[in-house]
Amino acid sequence: MMLVRLNMRVALAALCAAVMLLMLYWSRCGDLAKRPGSALSNAISERAPSEDIECSINGEYSVACRRDAAEVYVPFSFIRKYFEIYGKITSTDGVEKFEWSHSYSKVYHPKKKYDPRGTFTTFENYNVEVRDRVKCISGIEGVPVSTQWEPRGFFYPTQIAQFGLAHYSKNITEPEPRVRILDDGQKYMGNWTVSKDATMTREYDAEMKANVIRFSTSDQASSQVALKVNISQDFVLSLDVLFKPNSSLTVVLQHKDKKETVYLHYVTSTQLIYAQDDHIYYGIGVEQKWRRLTRDLIIDMQKGWALLDQPKRKSPRNKFRISSLSLSGAGAACGVRVSSSEHMAHFFAAARWLVRRQRARGGWPVPARRRVAPQVPDLAPGWHSAMSQGHGVSLLARAYQRSGDAAYLRAARRALALLAVPPAQGGVRATWMDRYVWYEEYPTKPPLFVLNGFIYALLGLYDLHVIEGENASSPAKKMFDDGMTSLKTLLPLFDTGSGSFYDLRHFTLGVSPNIARWDYHATHVNQLYLLAGLDPDPVLINTAKRWEGYMQGKRAAHN
Amino acid sequence: MMLVRLNMRVALAALCAAVMLLMLYWSRCGDLAKRPGSALSNAISERAPSEDIECSINGEYSVACRRDAAEVYVPFSFIRKYFEIYGKITSTDGVEKFEWSHSYSKVYHPKKKYDPRGTFTTFENYNVEVRDRVKCISGIEGVPVSTQWEPRGFFYPTQIAQFGLAHYSKNITEPEPRVRILDDGQKYMGNWTVSKDATMTREYDAEMKANVIRFSTSDQASSQVALKVNISQDFVLSLDVLFKPNSSLTVVLQHKDKKETVYLHYVTSTQLIYAQDDHIYYGIGVEQKWRRLTRDLIIDMQKGWALLDQPKRKSPRNKFRISSLSLSGAGAACGVRVSSSEHMAHFFAAARWLVRRQRARGGWPVPARRRVAPQVPDLAPGWHSAMSQGHGVSLLARAYQRSGDAAYLRAARRALALLAVPPAQGGVRATWMDRYVWYEEYPTKPPLFVLNGFIYALLGLYDLHVIEGENASSPAKKMFDDGMTSLKTLLPLFDTGSGSFYDLRHFTLGVSPNIARWDYHATHVNQLYLLAGLDPDPVLINTAKRWEGYMQGKRAAHN
Repeated sequence: MMLVRLNMRVALAALCAAVMLLMLYWSRCGDLAKRPGSALSNAISERAPSEDIECSINGEYSVACRRDAAEVYVPFSFIRKYFEIYGKITSTDGVEKFEWSHSYSKVYHPKKKYDPRGTFTTFENYNVEVRDRVKCISGIEGVPVSTQWEPRGFFYPTQIAQFGLAHYSKNITEPEPRVRILDDGQKYMGNWTVSKDATMTREYDAEMKANVIRFSTSDQASSQVALKVNISQDFVLSLDVLFKPNSSLTVVLQHKDKKETVYLHYVTSTQLIYAQDDHIYYGIGVEQKWRRLTRDLIIDMQKGWALLDQPKRKSPRNKFRISSLSLSGAGAACGVRVSSSEHMAHFFAAARWLVRRQRARGGWPVPARRRVAPQVPDLAPGWHSAMSQGHGVSLLARAYQRSGDAAYLRAARRALALLAVPPAQGGVRATWMDRYVWYEEYPTKPPLFVLNGFIYALLGLYDLHVIEGENASSPAKKMFDDGMTSLKTLLPLFDTGSGSFYDLRHFTLGVSPNIARWDYHATHVNQLYLLAGLDPDPVLINTAKRWEGYMQGKRAAHN
Repeated sequence: MMLVRLNMRVALAALCAAVMLLMLYWSRCGDLAKRPGSALSNAISERAPSEDIECSINGEYSVACRRDAAEVYVPFSFIRKYFEIYGKITSTDGVEKFEWSHSYSKVYHPKKKYDPRGTFTTFENYNVEVRDRVKCISGIEGVPVSTQWEPRGFFYPTQIAQFGLAHYSKNITEPEPRVRILDDGQKYMGNWTVSKDATMTREYDAEMKANVIRFSTSDQASSQVALKVNISQDFVLSLDVLFKPNSSLTVVLQHKDKKETVYLHYVTSTQLIYAQDDHIYYGIGVEQKWRRLTRDLIIDMQKGWALLDQPKRKSPRNKFRISSLSLSGAGAACGVRVSSSEHMAHFFAAARWLVRRQRARGGWPVPARRRVAPQVPDLAPGWHSAMSQGHGVSLLARAYQRSGDAAYLRAARRALALLAVPPAQGGVRATWMDRYVWYEEYPTKPPLFVLNGFIYALLGLYDLHVIEGENASSPAKKMFDDGMTSLKTLLPLFDTGSGSFYDLRHFTLGVSPNIARWDYHATHVNQLYLLAGLDPDPVLINTAKRWEGYMQGKRAAHN
């Protein structure tokens, strides 16, 4: 405050002095000022000098503003804080302008009716694995490990399903990947270098139905079977391996400009990830059986750096190249290739994880403690989420549809059971005033009625119902219909008149409302546009449109 | 847009030229600039010149802003429209500042627990009769006539009760009125002028138990019994009259500066109000019995002018004086006085109106059609309002408590009946999901759950319950308790996170929310502070405080 006032006095004194000086100069340079057509004299006389004026904000504090004859100008730095508006100066062809943004999020208008065989909502835009809260992609499971509520890392079913659904969606929307086969034992044979104390043979493997590489190296670190490459565009490595104990695959990445080399080691271990200096280790398990590794090497490198507390080390894909692969220990490998993407491999990794980890009640319990709101008891490890269940069903329905494997369909159907079980019995079914069912993303007591997770649960039900088709034997349809009734009834309660509520905790807890930040609000809008394509009730499309308008600063009318 | 860009170029050219001139001057006046401690050189070098910059608002349209090196300045005229913020330049001791106001309304913090014998909420601040939607104060009933939904005017029970409750409250909070007795037939005798063809006598009247003036004039317009006065401070005239047909009281008001005279005629007629040129007529009825007239002459004058479509004609109280009263026709008068206020007379006028006009079911039906929302059927004339009923009860409870007249108590009790009757049967009782009772200000189908009217109904119930005391025989207590349960449960649904909803039409109709404008929001806050003094449930006080914060631009947090 004091500072502001002092500055004002100084600035006022300066302005007055400047005006006096100008007047003095003009009196001497009369010719210039009077010259016909002089832009100077016209413009300066048209515009009063900008003065400082103190703005008293609601009588509580002051902000230094400017004024001229007709207008008061308010500093954007104040507006940004007061209203949470975003703004930046941009430049086009040398002309700068200031871009004012009411929200920072984007709405995707669906181009056609939602189809459970197609992309999952707008997930083609998701990049789950790059998120900070993803510790890494498990070398054993091929799915992300979350640190969101538990720094040691845990398998978060919602995140795993999102990872799978994002890759499924990208597989549809992105062009065909570039694939470069490095060694298929048949048409393409890599020119592997075998050190003196190592062996490498090629032989037919009945299980893989292909010619595979068998290798064996000594205990010497230099003993290896290596393939020099120079790949600088694509970084998703795939190969099948069968490793004996203490074996590994090492991929060397080199920075194109700097003398920087990173070693990615995929080792027979159960340790998730370990990093030291330029060496990053991923455990790929100890089972001696064929398995396929599909690794985004850039992601693997970045997660290693994050572990080393060097998250700022940049690894833009065009700055690195793969310079070699090497095998050590003993075992076999085949089908070595590098692609621009392997979306379906990631998708099915998630699908298999869901089938493998599903419990007897059909759930994917979350093993981390979750504090949802300070006023409700934490969710103890082992809680279920309607969002996990719904996402899981959406993913499994697609996996069944793609593969025809009935195991996926059975798992999807089993996953519904917990949607009928109340939180007190470990399920996720809440009801609004004993009347409207709500599938709870966080089954707290009392319920919070989180909107986006509920809608994701509905989408799972819809997906399964459609994929099941005429032979539907699950309660998916009825559960979806009941949920839609709830949604259409209660949706208006999430409307703030200028945004949306994330949940209804203000109702169930009597506390301050929990407003959805813009990215969640945009999720709501995207979800509603999708549902409006499935259900003609005007509340869906009208709410979607109104809520999209809120993102441009529109507001509901007051009386 | 084109205009903005042109101005920008011109202004930029001007600014550049100005800077060049300044630099030129400095090179000549080196001594001045280099003088030690010169504020000029320091300050000017600290502050970059203010330039124009185009602000693109959400990519939709542009606003001309200013910038300097570190800040972009946004014109307040844009902010005012975009965010509905209020602002004005004020001046204190010659220093101007800009006062930014998030809302235009005021919250009154109760100084003590609400008492049904005391002021009614914050109604001491209400001036019902000056509102534009009050056509005038009826000469017969002494209560306001509304034009809110019906230009011809009608008796709106809510408005009449507010008129009475405001005067009751002012009577408590204002100092004792100044009273000037003009004629009481005993101690103060007016010096009446009697024209030649008129008569005036003073005689004892058994009914009034006082010496009264009996008068009779001829048909000549000049024939009258008149009292010259010169009263310029107070304008509430009271007197008792008993008029034969075709009699009248005329009050002459004169502007102190201008040659402007206004004639207020109180005539034996049933016409509400009539005005022509400088003559304004109020019908006071045709019954030949004693009745007391209590008239705010300034209000009566202003309402006449409004009728003449001269609402802008100003009538500040200190610009006029009463110059005479005159009687014509035949009849009697007594107890003539002028006061600064006659609040209790107005209050009891409203109380008597409520008793007189109450119907068999206990209601005060509203005779005007009311369009509440475009999506619901209009309320047909004859509808009841829980707010009218509640206000009526609040007023009658006070009238009983002041007067001891049991007729008021009986009327208050009768008024509760409609609070138990659903709208389909002409009552005002809605329920939220068949569970929570709501006394509806506007009993539409479906219900809208208007908040402020519901709380006013609760206050009526509370008032009656407390005034009844131990001898309570009405269901007021139970109705109040049930309503409070509803309120405490549903109140959070009215929270927008930055204001409050006027009603829950977005829920019941699925339409855009109806945000309460700031004066209704302030009413909500005032009501909640009051209730928080009666009920310790934290939802009441916490909501009141949070909602008050919204008026200073605070917002609920987003996640």
